[in-house]
Amino acid sequence: MREIEGGVCAPKGFRAGGVRCGIKASSVKRDLALILADGPCTAAAVFTTNRVKAASVLVSREHLASGICRAVIANSGNANACTGAGGLAAARRMAVLAGKTFGFPAEQAAVASTGVIGVPLPIAAIEEGMGALAASLTADAAGHGAALEAIMTTDTRKKDGAMETEIGGVPVRLGGMVKGSGMIHPNMATMLGFITTDAAVSGELLDRALRRSVARSFNRLTVDGDTSTNDMVLVMASGVAGNSPIDREGADYEAFTEALETLCVKLTRAMARDGEGASRLVTVTVRGASGEVAAETLAKSVASSSLVKAACSGADANWGRVLCALGYAGVPFDPEAVTVRFASAAGSIPVCRNGASVPFSEEKAGEILSADEIGIQIDLEAPGGGPAGPGEAMVWGCDLTCEYVKINGDYRT
Amino acid sequence: MREIEGGVCAPKGFRAGGVRCGIKASSVKRDLALILADGPCTAAAVFTTNRVKAASVLVSREHLASGICRAVIANSGNANACTGAGGLAAARRMAVLAGKTFGFPAEQAAVASTGVIGVPLPIAAIEEGMGALAASLTADAAGHGAALEAIMTTDTRKKDGAMETEIGGVPVRLGGMVKGSGMIHPNMATMLGFITTDAAVSGELLDRALRRSVARSFNRLTVDGDTSTNDMVLVMASGVAGNSPIDREGADYEAFTEALETLCVKLTRAMARDGEGASRLVTVTVRGASGEVAAETLAKSVASSSLVKAACSGADANWGRVLCALGYAGVPFDPEAVTVRFASAAGSIPVCRNGASVPFSEEKAGEILSADEIGIQIDLEAPGGGPAGPGEAMVWGCDLTCEYVKINGDYRT
Repeated sequence: MREIEGGVCAPKGFRAGGVRCGIKASSVKRDLALILADGPCTAAAVFTTNRVKAASVLVSREHLASGICRAVIANSGNANACTGAGGLAAARRMAVLAGKTFGFPAEQAAVASTGVIGVPLPIAAIEEGMGALAASLTADAAGHGAALEAIMTTDTRKKDGAMETEIGGVPVRLGGMVKGSGMIHPNMATMLGFITTDAAVSGELLDRALRRSVARSFNRLTVDGDTSTNDMVLVMASGVAGNSPIDREGADYEAFTEALETLCVKLTRAMARDGEGASRLVTVTVRGASGEVAAETLAKSVASSSLVKAACSGADANWGRVLCALGYAGVPFDPEAVTVRFASAAGSIPVCRNGASVPFSEEKAGEILSADEIGIQIDLEAPGGGPAGPGEAMVWGCDLTCEYVKINGDYRT
Repeated sequence: MREIEGGVCAPKGFRAGGVRCGIKASSVKRDLALILADGPCTAAAVFTTNRVKAASVLVSREHLASGICRAVIANSGNANACTGAGGLAAARRMAVLAGKTFGFPAEQAAVASTGVIGVPLPIAAIEEGMGALAASLTADAAGHGAALEAIMTTDTRKKDGAMETEIGGVPVRLGGMVKGSGMIHPNMATMLGFITTDAAVSGELLDRALRRSVARSFNRLTVDGDTSTNDMVLVMASGVAGNSPIDREGADYEAFTEALETLCVKLTRAMARDGEGASRLVTVTVRGASGEVAAETLAKSVASSSLVKAACSGADANWGRVLCALGYAGVPFDPEAVTVRFASAAGSIPVCRNGASVPFSEEKAGEILSADEIGIQIDLEAPGGGPAGPGEAMVWGCDLTCEYVKINGDYRT
């Protein structure tokens, strides 16, 4: 398995593009994207669990129920959520426009929107932009980059990746792009993820692989399981790589899922690093919990604590807040058998053992916590030493800064 | 029922005081407080549900199991949490010192601490300060004020109150003080509340009244039910008012509980208003939910959303975030039958009806949201109009500002 270039266009059988059609106030930013497969793909997707769902989510869920997808059409600058019957009609219209322009049934189009909630989607702008969108499509990194730019809102970096692996001796590729700053504002119309692959995979196995990968990546960027009105991760498999189709669990399925999970984790880390206003990526690891779910719950509680996050922004080794956040996670553990370490490229030091303070150099701790990427490592220990249980999980987040407040204090203006 | 002066010294039978003993780095701030009853009081208390509990919580819970309390001794500047066996010994020592100095069994002392977690409590400083503490006690507003100052940490305002009501024709008084900024950092060693009354109330009814009042006040300032390692609310009843003792539910119990709840709500609002870095008190009201718990859960989800709070700081009428936060609260409701209003002393306007936008003046909305105290009013409606259910709840919070991040970026230094 190795990283390659090209994003969603790295796998064979896909083109992508993006243009400015005028949804965003900016006169230069792209706001309309398309990823188009040469032919029908098997597809799988996960959607927001929020009771308030964007029109695009409702339409995409309906369309993807068949397991077949040819394209995803997406806009930024407007979430098309809380927009009533007009919003639903606009989302359906986006699918129709994609189908008409490229000659496939509208039901084979997924639709995605991201941006402000509660403002009617200017569908006329999208309609007028379709010609330019078609002209922008390429099967290379340029098309990928244009599409990615067109789904970004407050994102400050492009977040993408591509992998190549072998399945039954045949090279297959996976590529992906995401927008969103994930955990720092899980309740915003934040996350969109589009993944392509040229592997041949049955719909059922593709769905299973996606759910497993998302559970261990994007869903570990989430506070409290919260999701926005628009969240969506879609994977499309063109099958043109020529591998023997994956239609059961086994070595091929594992190889594919490992590559998919690796790609999803890479994209997850990129979202954490680009959290609104974030100055650092914070990785929280819990070991020794009773199981993986318990470990994940504890790690999320720490990663989502405003106080822990504020301390990270100030490079303050305030480990008491870590213990406090573990304590209200709702998971049993022995508070007097906890070790906490802070780690980064600058080193690693224990700051708490047996649930109490250990002497440490504040200077060294400050140096470690001043890094771009920092780790909070928590070990729950058995009475005789060693882990108290087999559960381990890693969760990704970021620090909380003034910049976050500034960005979100007047997001609409 | 009317508001009176004097805080915890307003009820008969109590003295209070506070001094600087040297726990805080500051050379001027008080850090050791005592509230002393003239004789044994019936008492009730609620404590943090955090699995990581401060030594003071462990000791107070043990001592108050008898239902008898003579005094509470409290320090600020150090939470005495995550401090191991030494911390527990120090908390016990605080009770012994109070008992020895004033001549009562140590088991009749409640102990409270607030401040940094994980640092050994300098018990010698407290021991040396006991003489001055005794000398500082008075039965008036001065003693109350000194005690209140001595439990403050990042608090910027004194938060206290007192009420007088009649029970069976006899005037009784209740007084209280709190420290903490509550919901804005529910996972910190934040909230302490001490309430006195001269009403005669049985331990059982006092406990019942306290739990009901706390559920509708301090616990509605809490995000996700989270509590810190040190949270504690204590009520002591001296019984010297001379009312016929309240030992069953009925008119007297209701009058007492109403006064207690009113006092607790006043203190809760004061904490929300003084949230760390807060520029506004935000009251979220939900009507029309299936029940009170559902209404409270929905309102808390809105009041604790970082995005809603950031929008409040910017006076931005971003009602989509309100709907989004309702949507992930985990409570069923019809997203297309929601009305949202923003309100303050500057007026009130609907911004969302039937889950979608209604035209409103941005200028007027900005004016309303720029007030010191703002309301977010949410109505869940039945298909034919009117509330969808009988559940109503009010929750208190505050906005999220840069100042919060600054305060918590280097809290320990």
